[in-house]
Amino acid sequence: MSDNPAALIGASTELRSIDWVDGAVELIDQTALPEELVVLRIDEVADLVDAIQRLAVRGAPSIGVAGAFGVALAARAHLAQDPDEFTKAVANLRNARPTAVNLGRAVDRAAARAGAGFEAVLAEATKIRDEEIAACWEMGRRGADLLEELAGTRPQRLMTICNTGGLAAVQRGTALGVIATMFERGQLEEALPVETRPLLQGSRLTTWELSRMGAPFRLLVDSAGPFILARQPVDAVLIGADRVAANGDTANKVGSYALALGAHQASVPFIVVAPESSIDLETPTGDDIEIEDRGAAEVVGFRGLAFAPPGTPALNPAFDVTPVSLITALVTERRVVRFDRGEALAPLPSRDGENGIDKATEEEYE
Amino acid sequence: MSDNPAALIGASTELRSIDWVDGAVELIDQTALPEELVVLRIDEVADLVDAIQRLAVRGAPSIGVAGAFGVALAARAHLAQDPDEFTKAVANLRNARPTAVNLGRAVDRAAARAGAGFEAVLAEATKIRDEEIAACWEMGRRGADLLEELAGTRPQRLMTICNTGGLAAVQRGTALGVIATMFERGQLEEALPVETRPLLQGSRLTTWELSRMGAPFRLLVDSAGPFILARQPVDAVLIGADRVAANGDTANKVGSYALALGAHQASVPFIVVAPESSIDLETPTGDDIEIEDRGAAEVVGFRGLAFAPPGTPALNPAFDVTPVSLITALVTERRVVRFDRGEALAPLPSRDGENGIDKATEEEYE
Repeated sequence: MSDNPAALIGASTELRSIDWVDGAVELIDQTALPEELVVLRIDEVADLVDAIQRLAVRGAPSIGVAGAFGVALAARAHLAQDPDEFTKAVANLRNARPTAVNLGRAVDRAAARAGAGFEAVLAEATKIRDEEIAACWEMGRRGADLLEELAGTRPQRLMTICNTGGLAAVQRGTALGVIATMFERGQLEEALPVETRPLLQGSRLTTWELSRMGAPFRLLVDSAGPFILARQPVDAVLIGADRVAANGDTANKVGSYALALGAHQASVPFIVVAPESSIDLETPTGDDIEIEDRGAAEVVGFRGLAFAPPGTPALNPAFDVTPVSLITALVTERRVVRFDRGEALAPLPSRDGENGIDKATEEEYE
Repeated sequence: MSDNPAALIGASTELRSIDWVDGAVELIDQTALPEELVVLRIDEVADLVDAIQRLAVRGAPSIGVAGAFGVALAARAHLAQDPDEFTKAVANLRNARPTAVNLGRAVDRAAARAGAGFEAVLAEATKIRDEEIAACWEMGRRGADLLEELAGTRPQRLMTICNTGGLAAVQRGTALGVIATMFERGQLEEALPVETRPLLQGSRLTTWELSRMGAPFRLLVDSAGPFILARQPVDAVLIGADRVAANGDTANKVGSYALALGAHQASVPFIVVAPESSIDLETPTGDDIEIEDRGAAEVVGFRGLAFAPPGTPALNPAFDVTPVSLITALVTERRVVRFDRGEALAPLPSRDGENGIDKATEEEYE
């Protein structure tokens, strides 16, 4: 590994959190932000697995792309000499974070091309990257159009939680991608990210991305979000999603539900922005989503600084579930579902070329 | 100043955050908790003003008692030789934190005895201390009785925010005093304090007090509070108050409103515990309460550790307002007002001996 910010970031203002550059994976080390912009250059699968596990790369789409490029690294190293080693490396990538559904899906897609050799695997991984980026642009466009439909063309104040930008989704992002689109259209008065305890992705990462794009914003502590919604004009709350259940209930970073309650009380639209791949029709409702508790350590301090006495026990739900009754709309790369108008989630035919479904049908669902 | 924990804390398990001990003011330095229990011994008014300003002593009742004992320090030092110096010292105490109404009231009460000399001033300050402690015991009893009325005698799970214990209110506390009473009655299954960003009074101070009393508890980040209310059995949320408006709307630490929304959604009682002195009948509703913004520094980091990039702008409302429609009841040392049953706040005749009102009338209002 080496530090080489120039290669990944380039002269472009359009951040890409992970990519394949000159024969290796490069990714922004998200644990070092905001203090330092460190780009890791990785050419061994074991180092990539480590980067995924310690959250140097995070966000479901970014993790998926990392996994796919990891398969390319494994193919180059092992396919010719030792196919067993390749299989082992793929399994390690797949299990680096077992709960992130995108990781397994992307690793499997890339590994399915192994028979055609390294170049074919790399081409598939690159295609996954490009699909993720294209989806973000499309979510941004659809989300901004929805905001304009809801509030007109005047500049808007938009609240958000966690980090859903290019760091989480390779480039642009989901909820933050909508905010970026609004900014580019001259329709962003101010972004209002909440800090997102315990891991502070809002403070550390979202502020960094907003600063890079030159967008106006102010940070607030999580618990101030609902009150600011009650007291000040805010046009919408935008969140990403870890999983959207079949009925529209949405699991996302803890704190999303509290913002949804505040938005509902203040009659502010509450909008989920997530790719189709986050929709899980196998999960009927939010009640069927198990809530992972990540343990006390994240709550009782941060980066070695203790907030609470040693040994303090804590509850630490990593995410929460917002019931569909509090959600105005879901924006994906293919559709806007207006839950507030009684619309429901229907299965879409796949447009993944791999599965041979005709892309032309998608327009029906818009 | 000197460190001397033994004198203030003694062998008792009953914490007293501030007191007059052997001719000087002793107070627990709340900025050093939870790492260290430092007791400051103060015999100069200027040092006491400094302690108030840097939040070494905090919580409206504790600050009031600090101010009253400060007047005693000033009386001993200046009354005989230089009355002008006394007047100046009293003004400095009064202005140490201009927004805390208890401070001005307590300083004025103690200073009014200056004509009778140092001993009379000290007696008045001691009386204020004793009144605050007695009020806490009474709030604890009334609050625990109310909880028993609402949920029966089984042990309860009680959520709370910020620090409303002996540190804030000399001894016992307001909302945390109710939790202490429940614990002593064998009716506390678990306390659920939220950390209370940005200053983390929940993490630092409330956990410390709960540990000292041996009560079972788990800490959570603020934004998890509303979700835990939705997903787990919680019997009540208990908060203190900075100010209760005439219609019952309550200003308290930011985050209280989000918990009130979560409690309301989950049909969990939301109870304000505060002394009569926090009721401000001159303020008609919560809309008339101005929200102080304490600036970005508290939001972008903690104790020198940066959470956000340098120069990050922030919104930092220090408190929020919970509308009376979300409040089940107000518990004071003299009454329980059931807002959920349509009861309203009526003025009570003063029972302060200073004002010559007969204490016997108070029973009418219970």
